Amino acid sequence: MMQFALIGAGFIGPVHAANIAAHPRAQLRYVVDLNRDAASRVAGQHGAAIADSLDVVLADAKLDAVVICTPPRSHAAIIEAAARAGKAIFCEKPIDLDIVKVDACGAVLRKTGVPFFVGFNRRFDPTHSALHEALRRGDLGRAEMVIVSSRDPEISPPDYVAAMPYGIFYDTMIHDFDMVRWLTRDEPVEVYARTSVMLDEKINPVRDPDTAMVTLVLAGGALVHVNSSFRAVYGYDQRIEVFGEKGMLISRNQQPTSLERHGADGIHQAPLHYFFIQRYVQAYAAELDHFVTSVETCQPPSIGFEDGRRALAIAYAAMESAKSGRPVALPR
Amino acid sequence: MMQFALIGAGFIGPVHAANIAAHPRAQLRYVVDLNRDAASRVAGQHGAAIADSLDVVLADAKLDAVVICTPPRSHAAIIEAAARAGKAIFCEKPIDLDIVKVDACGAVLRKTGVPFFVGFNRRFDPTHSALHEALRRGDLGRAEMVIVSSRDPEISPPDYVAAMPYGIFYDTMIHDFDMVRWLTRDEPVEVYARTSVMLDEKINPVRDPDTAMVTLVLAGGALVHVNSSFRAVYGYDQRIEVFGEKGMLISRNQQPTSLERHGADGIHQAPLHYFFIQRYVQAYAAELDHFVTSVETCQPPSIGFEDGRRALAIAYAAMESAKSGRPVALPR
Amino acid sequence: MMQFALIGAGFIGPVHAANIAAHPRAQLRYVVDLNRDAASRVAGQHGAAIADSLDVVLADAKLDAVVICTPPRSHAAIIEAAARAGKAIFCEKPIDLDIVKVDACGAVLRKTGVPFFVGFNRRFDPTHSALHEALRRGDLGRAEMVIVSSRDPEISPPDYVAAMPYGIFYDTMIHDFDMVRWLTRDEPVEVYARTSVMLDEKINPVRDPDTAMVTLVLAGGALVHVNSSFRAVYGYDQRIEVFGEKGMLISRNQQPTSLERHGADGIHQAPLHYFFIQRYVQAYAAELDHFVTSVETCQPPSIGFEDGRRALAIAYAAMESAKSGRPVALPR
Amino acid sequence: MMQFALIGAGFIGPVHAANIAAHPRAQLRYVVDLNRDAASRVAGQHGAAIADSLDVVLADAKLDAVVICTPPRSHAAIIEAAARAGKAIFCEKPIDLDIVKVDACGAVLRKTGVPFFVGFNRRFDPTHSALHEALRRGDLGRAEMVIVSSRDPEISPPDYVAAMPYGIFYDTMIHDFDMVRWLTRDEPVEVYARTSVMLDEKINPVRDPDTAMVTLVLAGGALVHVNSSFRAVYGYDQRIEVFGEKGMLISRNQQPTSLERHGADGIHQAPLHYFFIQRYVQAYAAELDHFVTSVETCQPPSIGFEDGRRALAIAYAAMESAKSGRPVALPR
Repeated sequence: MMQFALIGAGFIGPVHAANIAAHPRAQLRYVVDLNRDAASRVAGQHGAAIADSLDVVLADAKLDAVVICTPPRSHAAIIEAAARAGKAIFCEKPIDLDIVKVDACGAVLRKTGVPFFVGFNRRFDPTHSALHEALRRGDLGRAEMVIVSSRDPEISPPDYVAAMPYGIFYDTMIHDFDMVRWLTRDEPVEVYARTSVMLDEKINPVRDPDTAMVTLVLAGGALVHVNSSFRAVYGYDQRIEVFGEKGMLISRNQQPTSLERHGADGIHQAPLHYFFIQRYVQAYAAELDHFVTSVETCQPPSIGFEDGRRALAIAYAAMESAKSGRPVALPR
Repeated sequence: MMQFALIGAGFIGPVHAANIAAHPRAQLRYVVDLNRDAASRVAGQHGAAIADSLDVVLADAKLDAVVICTPPRSHAAIIEAAARAGKAIFCEKPIDLDIVKVDACGAVLRKTGVPFFVGFNRRFDPTHSALHEALRRGDLGRAEMVIVSSRDPEISPPDYVAAMPYGIFYDTMIHDFDMVRWLTRDEPVEVYARTSVMLDEKINPVRDPDTAMVTLVLAGGALVHVNSSFRAVYGYDQRIEVFGEKGMLISRNQQPTSLERHGADGIHQAPLHYFFIQRYVQAYAAELDHFVTSVETCQPPSIGFEDGRRALAIAYAAMESAKSGRPVALPR
Repeated sequence: MMQFALIGAGFIGPVHAANIAAHPRAQLRYVVDLNRDAASRVAGQHGAAIADSLDVVLADAKLDAVVICTPPRSHAAIIEAAARAGKAIFCEKPIDLDIVKVDACGAVLRKTGVPFFVGFNRRFDPTHSALHEALRRGDLGRAEMVIVSSRDPEISPPDYVAAMPYGIFYDTMIHDFDMVRWLTRDEPVEVYARTSVMLDEKINPVRDPDTAMVTLVLAGGALVHVNSSFRAVYGYDQRIEVFGEKGMLISRNQQPTSLERHGADGIHQAPLHYFFIQRYVQAYAAELDHFVTSVETCQPPSIGFEDGRRALAIAYAAMESAKSGRPVALPR
Repeated sequence: MMQFALIGAGFIGPVHAANIAAHPRAQLRYVVDLNRDAASRVAGQHGAAIADSLDVVLADAKLDAVVICTPPRSHAAIIEAAARAGKAIFCEKPIDLDIVKVDACGAVLRKTGVPFFVGFNRRFDPTHSALHEALRRGDLGRAEMVIVSSRDPEISPPDYVAAMPYGIFYDTMIHDFDMVRWLTRDEPVEVYARTSVMLDEKINPVRDPDTAMVTLVLAGGALVHVNSSFRAVYGYDQRIEVFGEKGMLISRNQQPTSLERHGADGIHQAPLHYFFIQRYVQAYAAELDHFVTSVETCQPPSIGFEDGRRALAIAYAAMESAKSGRPVALPR
């Protein structure tokens, strides 16, 4: 049984904790969080211990792996400590917010050689996976255009938003940039981005961009569009469309039920899943399983440091473009 | 230019008149209706003459064909007169309501040999046609079950209903019985029917059946279900599903527009077409074109007397079953 | 923690075992099966003990409940034994095959008063549940017609089929009969059924009916159609359509992924879920949770003895009708 | 009866000729084309005369209106001549290719005051119209993002392409730019465009851009994405999605039939309409009717000179951006 420590018990932490607990070959040993209440709630649910500090946890020789769910700015330091302690690392995206720190922690990872995985969970969604397989199989031939719609039903709380200006790029769209790289097996050479503040002052008092469109030009010539919003009142809108020489593939949205009502006013279906927790429930379980299996079999996890770094670099280029109003070139 | 007389200017008459007028090789010469206003309205729109009597019209040697849209009880007499005058005949379903009269008029048709077509317009709908072609192509292999939903948005006026008791079978479902014969190329050997009166006293004061389900057992063993209602508040519901050894084919409903709205309350689409005039606009034009072409090329029209008679016989067997509560055998 | 014994480790047994093991307030204590290999496989997966006999298991005072997944003919005896031992009972449908035995075991259940639940799992499917709620809410007004398509992708092995002649009614459609009762809150007063043998000799050597259509007339006048087949090559086809005065509700099929491919040959989507295990994965977990909660809170489970008995009685009436070719009246 | 001359009998000319002929209050009097064969083919079908020159036609006092379907470069001269002759003008888009000539002809139109209509036919499509109405009704609240996919199934012949470099913007996307203006009632202030040459040398020997993505920033802050391709092998892909504070509206694609096949390999539907002639058959008839009615009632047609000019200006700005690689500002 692989022994895990969960670092960060808020937000997505409980999802990972539950998946570890339900996994036949994994066990949740520790939960670490500055917020003792959050830590003890999650630990209690799954019979794990609460640890006072990361050091104590990493010193336990029986611990195999850490799952890092703390705020992004703290990631690099935790990754480095865990790597030096020889633990396998499952890190939520982004690797960190500071690209200098990201590179420093990349060096540590290379030196220590510990398994390192970035939680781009969407790669493990069954439908996105089916899209990926269809592309690998050659169903479309060359991909010529990619259109990604990636919209959240709500904006984060003001303090979260204030702490991460232009987060729409490196906190949200970073997932989409990863998907584009993964699906096309190509890299962007130019990024152009435009943002807008569309939400009311009440729900977006920080006036940080809540609406954005990005164009990517890939090295191979394919054109990519990504759009995002923090106010999709109809639910979590996550569609990917790839157009190519043999046609088009669409990873469509999903609904919790398939009931249809026909009334005098038309045809009605249930709304989409509300948010990512509901939409990607299978993906979260599958990425944990992939991580466990990778570590057990000594294979590098399918999403590594370089993937995490590149998605962040694209996000930052998009932010730069949005600020300057000019397209930004990306080194290959 | 083929010269037509329209016999009966009400209800579906104007649809046929417009299709004749728009047809490049057909011309509307006469309109005959006891209701002079109706006749002159239709005639005026298309530059046709109003005729005082059927005899006058049939005596015109320049007239090639008649389209019969009068109430069903008058069909047989008009068919016989037109046949004896040597005119090609396009007759709305049913051939007549009295099977004895139907057979008598069949004898006249055989003797005179004039082209005779029964207006089972649904056979000319593009989607039902595509279903038919898929079956002929063998996409399903042997058909094992057929499920037909055939629902009207409203019931006919009380006097119309009163004049045709159990009309749900021989006025409405007769179309479906024809579709089943056409699609399966098989004949029913047993009919079982059940009806219900579900509409309010106000809109169905006659208390004639407004809801019905029919089971047909085909000679080849396939099972058929047909359901009908006169209160589909969501529009004209016309679906045909054929299930077979290689899968299932569904002729789905159609909507006038393809707009989709996603709101906090779910996903919304436009209602179905309201009724048969909207839904089968292409089918009406196509059947007229088929009739014209058949007559021009001296080919028998694709839907003949025997088709009209058999569909009626099935409808009457269904009525008998609904009244007796027992399955009714049909001669092959 | 509620302690369970699984009686019958084949077929659906492992599904229930896994759900018990995953339930936060339930534990799998014993697995009983004449087939020791099957028993030890399931027991081993979830850390349960293998028991040599039902008697040993029922004698354990720490055991709270049994889940009965043995072949139908053995159900009544096991139910009676478990009831006399004071255990809560979760029984797979049907209650038994012999209606006399069913009634006898009903008497025992009434006398002992143990909690008794029949596993009509579909009532716990999220979409069927949403349909149920919409009906209770009055979205349709009075239900006038119900159309149920209930098709399996494959037929059971010949020995299974041979042991349960006309099983299409009491082994398969019994689920649909329960759904109709549950959704309409009404009872059938007449049943008419027709069957066909459509599968090849090779896959249905027993020549037991593999295709069936049933008409039910409900006490309130609503008409019901149910069709079934053991050869839906496109997957597990489970649709329920309720038509009423305010429109139509459809519990549509479901697919494992929502990928769509547009090619020169048209638009393509993934097939349906293959079979009930995939389609009803949530329903199986939800019914187990319902059972646990019912027992814990001393509430009678939502599906009781009378529900199981009535669905069986409808199934037998359908069989009788199919054999005699006549509609069969059902006592209210 | 309004008397029409068709100027240009190729390409879209026959569609307009047929709609004029079928219109109850319009008549096709002349067909003019340098290609006498094309002219006589169209004229013959509808009983019109062939005219040797535009001058002869415009000199006919009985002529009310011209429909201009010649190549774009000839439009301005014909518009001016027709305007000076006092004829009502229905002109295919674009008004002309040379913006200086466009402005000159605008001056003539203002001076003469003849009715002038630009054939942005999509505004008359029932589904796009329903989208427009929903926006006007306020179903979405403020529009925040617009995503337009506008893809042709094939590229024009090489000589056509060679004559109009970057035609993807001013010949194709010009329709989409008009739709965006019409739907949002807002104007772009910035355009950014990227193109790619994706088609094989054989079908695009000119190597003119066949794939493009455009971003528009509207004055009100809304962001717009338009993508286009000349190789949608699955048919004419014409979707418009508007996202706003209350949800999302999608004008979806349309298929000629609604047949669905379920096989072991999944669910299959018919391809989309092949191209604009099939997709917009209703729109072409409706725009002609609008033009006739406008002229009859002395109302200015709903799409005027300014609409045609602005769409062209956006297209040219997109071309400039695609060539320079930089966003281009548009004067308000």
